[in-house]
Amino acid sequence: MIENIDSLFKQLTHGVYVIGVSNNERQNAFTAAWVMQVSHAPPLLAISINPAHYSYQLLKSSNICTVNILANHQFYLAEHFGQSNPNKMSNHQWQQDQTGAPILSSSLAYFDCQVINYTEAGDHVIAVCRVVSAAQLCKGNPLLYTQTGDLDGSSTLYD
Amino acid sequence: MIENIDSLFKQLTHGVYVIGVSNNERQNAFTAAWVMQVSHAPPLLAISINPAHYSYQLLKSSNICTVNILANHQFYLAEHFGQSNPNKMSNHQWQQDQTGAPILSSSLAYFDCQVINYTEAGDHVIAVCRVVSAAQLCKGNPLLYTQTGDLDGSSTLYD
Repeated sequence: MIENIDSLFKQLTHGVYVIGVSNNERQNAFTAAWVMQVSHAPPLLAISINPAHYSYQLLKSSNICTVNILANHQFYLAEHFGQSNPNKMSNHQWQQDQTGAPILSSSLAYFDCQVINYTEAGDHVIAVCRVVSAAQLCKGNPLLYTQTGDLDGSSTLYD
Repeated sequence: MIENIDSLFKQLTHGVYVIGVSNNERQNAFTAAWVMQVSHAPPLLAISINPAHYSYQLLKSSNICTVNILANHQFYLAEHFGQSNPNKMSNHQWQQDQTGAPILSSSLAYFDCQVINYTEAGDHVIAVCRVVSAAQLCKGNPLLYTQTGDLDGSSTLYD
C-alpha cells in the first residue's frame, strides 16, 4: 500500500457526472467522477465503471449511455444518484436524444454516447464512448469531485 | 460535427499534469490534461496520449511514466512542457523513484507508474497505468485545465 494514496488521488482533478443507462425496457442513472475526454476526432469520452453495479449490466446490454455534467450547486443530485435506490429515477425530469439513453434535464450539459469498447482496469472497467450528440442545457459551472468530500467512501477502498 | 463541441468538452473537468517518460537513455516530459483515476485496488490511472508525439515512442519502449500534478500557480510549466523543444528538460529539477521515469520536483505530487495496457481511442491512445509509488512534494491546489484557456489549440482540432 502506498502511504496516503487516497489523499494523493484526491489531488487528481475530476468532475461529477450522472451517467444515464438504458436497455429500452429499463433505465437507471448513477453518479461517477471518473470521466474524461480521450479523443478530439472522433469525439470520444472514457468512463471508468464499477462492473459489480446493476447499471453496468444495463450498459453492457445496450452499449449506450449519457454523460450529464452536474453544476456546482447540484451536490444533492450527486448524492441522490450515488445511492442504490430502485426508485431513484422518479421525480426527476428526463429527455432523450439519438441513442434513447436517459438525459438528466437539470444537468449543465450532456453527451449522448455509444460505447465502442471496454477495457478491464483493476476493480473497474473503462468504457470508451463515441459522442453522437451533445448539448448545453443550463448555464453554470461544473461541480468538482473535491467538493463532494468522502461522499463515495473512497478512503476505505484501497488495499 | 456536433455544434459547439469544443465548448461542451471544456465543461468536463480535467486537471493539468506533466507526464515524465524515459527509456533509460533518453528522457522527456509533456503537458497533458486527459488523466484520471480508473481503479482503487489496484491503484490505476489512465492517460490519453497523442501517439504522433515523440514522448509516446519513449513510453512504448519502456512502459514506465510519471504523472506530476501541477499547482494552480504553475501555468508557466504547462506552457513550457506543452512545447516541442528538445531542450525542455534542462533548467528543471528532476528526481526518480521506483521506475526511474523523471519526476518533476516542483510539482504538487507525483505518481510513479508502470503501464499495464494500451487501448486505441480515436486520435489518441489510452495508457492504463499501475501506480507503483506516489508522494506529495509541495503544498497547494491543483491547476484546472479550464484555467489554461486555449493553450493547446484544441478549438481547432474537431472534425
